[in-house]
Amino acid sequence: MAKNFTSREEDYSAWYNELVAKADLAEHSAVRGCMVIKPYGYAIWEKMQAQLDKMFKETGHENAYFPLLVPKSLFEAEEKNAEGFAKECAVVTHYRLKTDPNDKTKLIVDPDAKLEEELIIRPTSEAIIWNTYKGWIESYRDLPLLINQWANVMRWEMRTRLFLRTAEFLWQEGHTAHATKDEAIAESEQMINIYSEFAQNFMAMPVIMGKKSDSERFAGADNTLTIEALMQDGKALQAGTSHFLGQNFAKAFDVQFTNKEGKKDFVWATSWGVSTRLIGGLIMTHSDDDGLVLPPNLAPIQVVIVPIHKGEEQLDQISEKVKGIKSLLEAKGISVKFDNRDTYKPGYKFAEWEFKGVPVRIAMGPRDLENGTVEIARRDTKEKTSHNIEGVADIIEALLTDIQDNLYNKALNYRNEHITEANSWDEFKELLETKTGFISAHWDGTEETEEKIKQETKATIRCIPLDAKEEAGICVFSGNPSTKRVLFAKAY
Amino acid sequence: MAKNFTSREEDYSAWYNELVAKADLAEHSAVRGCMVIKPYGYAIWEKMQAQLDKMFKETGHENAYFPLLVPKSLFEAEEKNAEGFAKECAVVTHYRLKTDPNDKTKLIVDPDAKLEEELIIRPTSEAIIWNTYKGWIESYRDLPLLINQWANVMRWEMRTRLFLRTAEFLWQEGHTAHATKDEAIAESEQMINIYSEFAQNFMAMPVIMGKKSDSERFAGADNTLTIEALMQDGKALQAGTSHFLGQNFAKAFDVQFTNKEGKKDFVWATSWGVSTRLIGGLIMTHSDDDGLVLPPNLAPIQVVIVPIHKGEEQLDQISEKVKGIKSLLEAKGISVKFDNRDTYKPGYKFAEWEFKGVPVRIAMGPRDLENGTVEIARRDTKEKTSHNIEGVADIIEALLTDIQDNLYNKALNYRNEHITEANSWDEFKELLETKTGFISAHWDGTEETEEKIKQETKATIRCIPLDAKEEAGICVFSGNPSTKRVLFAKAY
Repeated sequence: MAKNFTSREEDYSAWYNELVAKADLAEHSAVRGCMVIKPYGYAIWEKMQAQLDKMFKETGHENAYFPLLVPKSLFEAEEKNAEGFAKECAVVTHYRLKTDPNDKTKLIVDPDAKLEEELIIRPTSEAIIWNTYKGWIESYRDLPLLINQWANVMRWEMRTRLFLRTAEFLWQEGHTAHATKDEAIAESEQMINIYSEFAQNFMAMPVIMGKKSDSERFAGADNTLTIEALMQDGKALQAGTSHFLGQNFAKAFDVQFTNKEGKKDFVWATSWGVSTRLIGGLIMTHSDDDGLVLPPNLAPIQVVIVPIHKGEEQLDQISEKVKGIKSLLEAKGISVKFDNRDTYKPGYKFAEWEFKGVPVRIAMGPRDLENGTVEIARRDTKEKTSHNIEGVADIIEALLTDIQDNLYNKALNYRNEHITEANSWDEFKELLETKTGFISAHWDGTEETEEKIKQETKATIRCIPLDAKEEAGICVFSGNPSTKRVLFAKAY
Repeated sequence: MAKNFTSREEDYSAWYNELVAKADLAEHSAVRGCMVIKPYGYAIWEKMQAQLDKMFKETGHENAYFPLLVPKSLFEAEEKNAEGFAKECAVVTHYRLKTDPNDKTKLIVDPDAKLEEELIIRPTSEAIIWNTYKGWIESYRDLPLLINQWANVMRWEMRTRLFLRTAEFLWQEGHTAHATKDEAIAESEQMINIYSEFAQNFMAMPVIMGKKSDSERFAGADNTLTIEALMQDGKALQAGTSHFLGQNFAKAFDVQFTNKEGKKDFVWATSWGVSTRLIGGLIMTHSDDDGLVLPPNLAPIQVVIVPIHKGEEQLDQISEKVKGIKSLLEAKGISVKFDNRDTYKPGYKFAEWEFKGVPVRIAMGPRDLENGTVEIARRDTKEKTSHNIEGVADIIEALLTDIQDNLYNKALNYRNEHITEANSWDEFKELLETKTGFISAHWDGTEETEEKIKQETKATIRCIPLDAKEEAGICVFSGNPSTKRVLFAKAY
């Protein structure tokens, strides 16, 4: 299957698009910018969801569901938020179709079914949720309110890319309400830490936690925390954000509570989200010129077993052995597929599962039957070894851990090698052209400088790392004084 | 909490609405007909989802995700389907808002951002999915295609009711493609059986499986199978449907495959779905004048433990004992909440958890501490008993099974007592007025008669039961000959 497949070096963007298609992850639909997530791609999302949902619940959050549509007047209420999303909104204006009087086989919008007030398909749900919270919060006893929603959202993006940027995408959005500013800030920090932990331990994708600059902040937030990952082509990917919303939405929707002292105050808020974009990040962190590479902790199929046989009888003998191995692996919580399709040859199956990134392949042929062995191949390094069937489950279990660690370390090394300090404007520009990756540079803290750098180089401030140390320096662009390095990169 | 709560006898409809609100299940939103599903209500949906998803996967189905929006031209393709849903469609016509030039704080729809083709928010996804399947199916090797989607859908209903009928609702929709007619029919039967099993074993809600009459069939289907439940007020609820779609969608979207003999043929299809409506059915099957009653198999909290204490020290002693009980129960997979809030008194907590339908309540007070006992109360019968702490986990486990069975049997008895044969038109009308429930009657098989009965009595044919026996008779309305009894009822 890796034939007719563009290599990363040839054209990274074509490589990505072809990989998503050939690995059966997703495809474009008949609706501009909206994707179909195919079963194999969706199975990765289900793994991500299950783990994140567990982490959210362990930290006291509950799920709920709020309407898809937002009345325009509610959408307007928080001004900055509205401004930030108004230009990419799908708008519902009518609620009925009727038969076209000129062509009975066609439907037209019924002009008599025009809505009094237009409805927006949620680009994010702060407005509808805070309008709802107004009815839920009266006193400090109702706080904190820790709610998450799994949902589809829509932003009318002009340039779309499967998983990375689509008009409709799936995500989770947490929306919490707190009695104090400190509590809300702590919540926003807790959630970016959860995202970071998830990215590192499950996606095997190292991330840098940081704060967004004012211009890159979420529309309506007082502060935005982000996790930033580095893709193999040296471009950054914003993988998740957590916002401290201050009292902005509480004020816009008049959500006040009575505190323990009997005084009224506006509620403090956070929101935080990750989306199907993570699948794009997963692909671009690990995959290679032979297709997808999946970390075991998120692989829908962790182990595939392929029989190599001539005739029914041999297949029966192999199947018998495989049954035992499969149940031992499953008892350890490992997901196993026995690919006994008779419509495809072993070579085809090998190529298919390799392309689909299954971490471990077990093959069993006539000689293995004789010797009581199997051949084990790992997807990440392509290493193949032969093992006795006895004890194979323990070996596979250890191997999966090893693959998970190896993928993380490889990505971490790459990322660390691609954080480079630039101390002059020429250095900055040259790094962007030659080495790519994150550029750690002093910045004078003004939006003006940020904007000029972006215009000249397309690089943006990805974040001000949380662990950035205080260090006197001069801005790489303006020469003005600076106290900290920030990370620049071209980004998805 | 059961104060200020309308009883079922007083006003069943008010009872339902108040229950949904007071048990914190859902509420109306700012968008006409769209609901907010609150955390406790959503937790029930999550339990339903988890179980159904398991059953779907065990029968070989995979999940995927298709776009929310359907281009009008695709929507039109299957004529009957389009006709069936055209009158209740939310239509997206624009993709951008802009600042109102007359009032800078307001937004208006940008007339320059009008879509060339209108987009419909999916009322169901056959059109977009079959347009996609066209690219996925070439040969018999690609079949069967067994896909399910968990999604939100929208139907612009005029009269809405929380859970039972809302403009937006959550559901799952299965869409399968098969090489033969028989296989597709078998799939549609398998899925209605899965729904029936789920309703009976998890919801403790008895259902009758049957076939819909032509006029009640899904728009675009050749046959619709249904499960019909009976609510406590004698009205029926259609709880799930499974459709054999013939080759209608394959023909509308030109989806052909090459069979083993190398010949081309149109693909055979099914679709099947259940929705958040099930939560409405769950409520109306078991709940009483003291609030919600939940079957243990779907209760988000199966056991609540309430301490009755004076002062911190007693609470500490009780907490110590509770910790042991809780972990024993959790080891058995039972979900337990220890309600140690210090902001509410035990009486308030008792009333709250009773209203929320938690199947088992354990209370522990000072005397229990002395005696090494707990008080166990079951929600369904209100029975209270005292037990030694030792062995209490086994007792609770058995009790949960007993409650599940008791609820099912109670509902089954009620349902069976409310299936009555009518052999004359007068009998039919009288039964509808006095006894309500399902009326088993002969029908001449014509749409005309069905329509007249509906107009005169509001009763519809709920289904032609799959196990209806052949029996010569005369139609209760027209007097024409009939070979089978069908079930009539007023319905939600």
